[in-house]
Amino acid sequence: MKLSIERATLLKAVSQAQSVVERRNTIPILANVLIEASGDHASFRATDLDIEVVDRVTAMVERAGASTVSAVTLHEIVRKLPDGALVTLTDDGASGRLTVEAGRSNFSLTTLPKEDFPVMATSEYTSNFTASAMTLRRLFDKSKFAISTEETRYYLNGVYMHVAEGDGGQKLRCVATDGHRLARIDADLPTDAGDMPGVIVPRKTVGEMRKLLDDDDAQIAVSVSETKVRFATPNVTLTSKVIDGTFPDYTRVIPSGNTRKLEVDAAEFAKAVDRVATVSSERSRAVKLALDEDRLILSVNAPDSGAAEEELAVAYGDEKLEIGFNAKYLLEIASQVDRENAVFLFNTSGDPTLMREGNDTSAIYVVMPMRV
Amino acid sequence: MKLSIERATLLKAVSQAQSVVERRNTIPILANVLIEASGDHASFRATDLDIEVVDRVTAMVERAGASTVSAVTLHEIVRKLPDGALVTLTDDGASGRLTVEAGRSNFSLTTLPKEDFPVMATSEYTSNFTASAMTLRRLFDKSKFAISTEETRYYLNGVYMHVAEGDGGQKLRCVATDGHRLARIDADLPTDAGDMPGVIVPRKTVGEMRKLLDDDDAQIAVSVSETKVRFATPNVTLTSKVIDGTFPDYTRVIPSGNTRKLEVDAAEFAKAVDRVATVSSERSRAVKLALDEDRLILSVNAPDSGAAEEELAVAYGDEKLEIGFNAKYLLEIASQVDRENAVFLFNTSGDPTLMREGNDTSAIYVVMPMRV
Repeated sequence: MKLSIERATLLKAVSQAQSVVERRNTIPILANVLIEASGDHASFRATDLDIEVVDRVTAMVERAGASTVSAVTLHEIVRKLPDGALVTLTDDGASGRLTVEAGRSNFSLTTLPKEDFPVMATSEYTSNFTASAMTLRRLFDKSKFAISTEETRYYLNGVYMHVAEGDGGQKLRCVATDGHRLARIDADLPTDAGDMPGVIVPRKTVGEMRKLLDDDDAQIAVSVSETKVRFATPNVTLTSKVIDGTFPDYTRVIPSGNTRKLEVDAAEFAKAVDRVATVSSERSRAVKLALDEDRLILSVNAPDSGAAEEELAVAYGDEKLEIGFNAKYLLEIASQVDRENAVFLFNTSGDPTLMREGNDTSAIYVVMPMRV
Repeated sequence: MKLSIERATLLKAVSQAQSVVERRNTIPILANVLIEASGDHASFRATDLDIEVVDRVTAMVERAGASTVSAVTLHEIVRKLPDGALVTLTDDGASGRLTVEAGRSNFSLTTLPKEDFPVMATSEYTSNFTASAMTLRRLFDKSKFAISTEETRYYLNGVYMHVAEGDGGQKLRCVATDGHRLARIDADLPTDAGDMPGVIVPRKTVGEMRKLLDDDDAQIAVSVSETKVRFATPNVTLTSKVIDGTFPDYTRVIPSGNTRKLEVDAAEFAKAVDRVATVSSERSRAVKLALDEDRLILSVNAPDSGAAEEELAVAYGDEKLEIGFNAKYLLEIASQVDRENAVFLFNTSGDPTLMREGNDTSAIYVVMPMRV
């Protein structure tokens, strides 16, 4: 194998590969990237056995072939090469080495047999559709903060992507929850997505897939089966197993009878919560919201360190209410609001609270209160 | 006590205080900042019993007095307050609380008795002189990387500041070493500094003192005794114990007979070292330098991961030489060079190597070779 690639192109491909590779591997070949060259293309493939990414780039291929080297080392080398360099990768197939040449730099990296590299089995996909990068970005960016980190509740360790009945018809919906808070984000259902099975996309896959979504106008080909999901741009294909479990019936958690409405500037609210939470103890982080006619008083009382209080001018017309929340959850939810206007809908101080942007029901958040 | 201060002024004072405070304290009052207000000033004092910092700022003092509160909490609060806010600090002397008010925010922090706050004993200083911030910054910035982190060699855990005979007469000199590399930086001797005793300024003091040196034109009042050192701007006074030990005779380590001269672009050299070191094993990090007529070949050979080689055009006219170094040490030393031209002076592959910028002997570095 012998090929030459412009440094920036190579860096992008190897960067995605090394990110999928797990840092601690008991199987040595999983630390490697599989490089395959033929025609006028090279592909860079990496896997952790759950996720596989393949990046296909234009290359000057002098001799077709394949090789595998440490993804992290190759990435480090390419990153340190000067911008604009032309990088030549050569594996003579006999020495067990891949040479990396650029200008006056010369590297020789140990390889592992390409035959040992585990290539993910191809699948039949139930559903194939196209969604814009912007749509997918919104669905996952606004929901991922609520993914649970508790390994025992493995079925909550991802974003549940499925088709659901929303305002104005069927929607492509992403839901994540950790039992304390929940995010439910809707987008218009893409053509051909109607028969998609619901899948739980693992946290790591969400993070890796996010890297394909930077270009607003890009169209992403999405394929879904009961066991796998695939996101593809013209150059990069990311395939991932989905979480083998049943996402709980989240609809029961979303309150429908909350009528006490608070409207508040999301940024001002977040800053005030952050300030009063300064004195809260590391463990509880409880903030009390006291609501009265167009007035919100945020307060924290921590016997060890002190107390804090801040008043905000808000729009609120219902009866007096006192309710407590974990400051971290309030901050995370408030930071999801793109526009100024956050709307909270309360019931009692013991019931889940609903939050959304203005009257927009395509992104709603639920947060459980805590006793204060 | 009751006083009001502009937020930015307060933030600067409290920021310096919380930085001196150790995060884990067995003595609760050491987590606090002592605030003292009288006349039209307030002072903020913090200590870890080895270092004491006092920041004196202009304040509107309504009622003179003193109080102590958690430096970290107060800093967090002030940091989160909006820019331009006027902050009022009140301690009624009876409730055991300090209130912090700004706009609609109101905090009440637990205090500890001001009488318990340990104020560092005043000292007689042997020597008092003035040095520009720029001079001190150069002396310490260029030497501190070589400070030892080995606690057993406590006498190397700082920068040895002393008066020494240098090129063109007596100099104010800073030396640091960890046994593997050494930095020796000279500056013109300030007036009245001639009788200064040599002191080992601890690593933490060097870091805290550095914050007083950002303004090029500032004049720093330096006071030195056998046991303490003090650095003061008109507003901030930093007092520190010095390390109670004897700095070894470093002059024996500095080679004087090295005649093989290599001239190289410091930035190009550093980048090349960084690149070839990519394949080196985490433990050894050995880089080999092979010198020949105007040619330098950097190489690394790591059986596990591979090999790397890079050639640099240099100025070298002596006989062939091969010598190995720890890549980290080479990188750190090369990054001290402000100008392009790094000059290395070698003897044999087993002897310490000297590095300086061009012909400037006011900043020299010594690095021990390693077998490769």
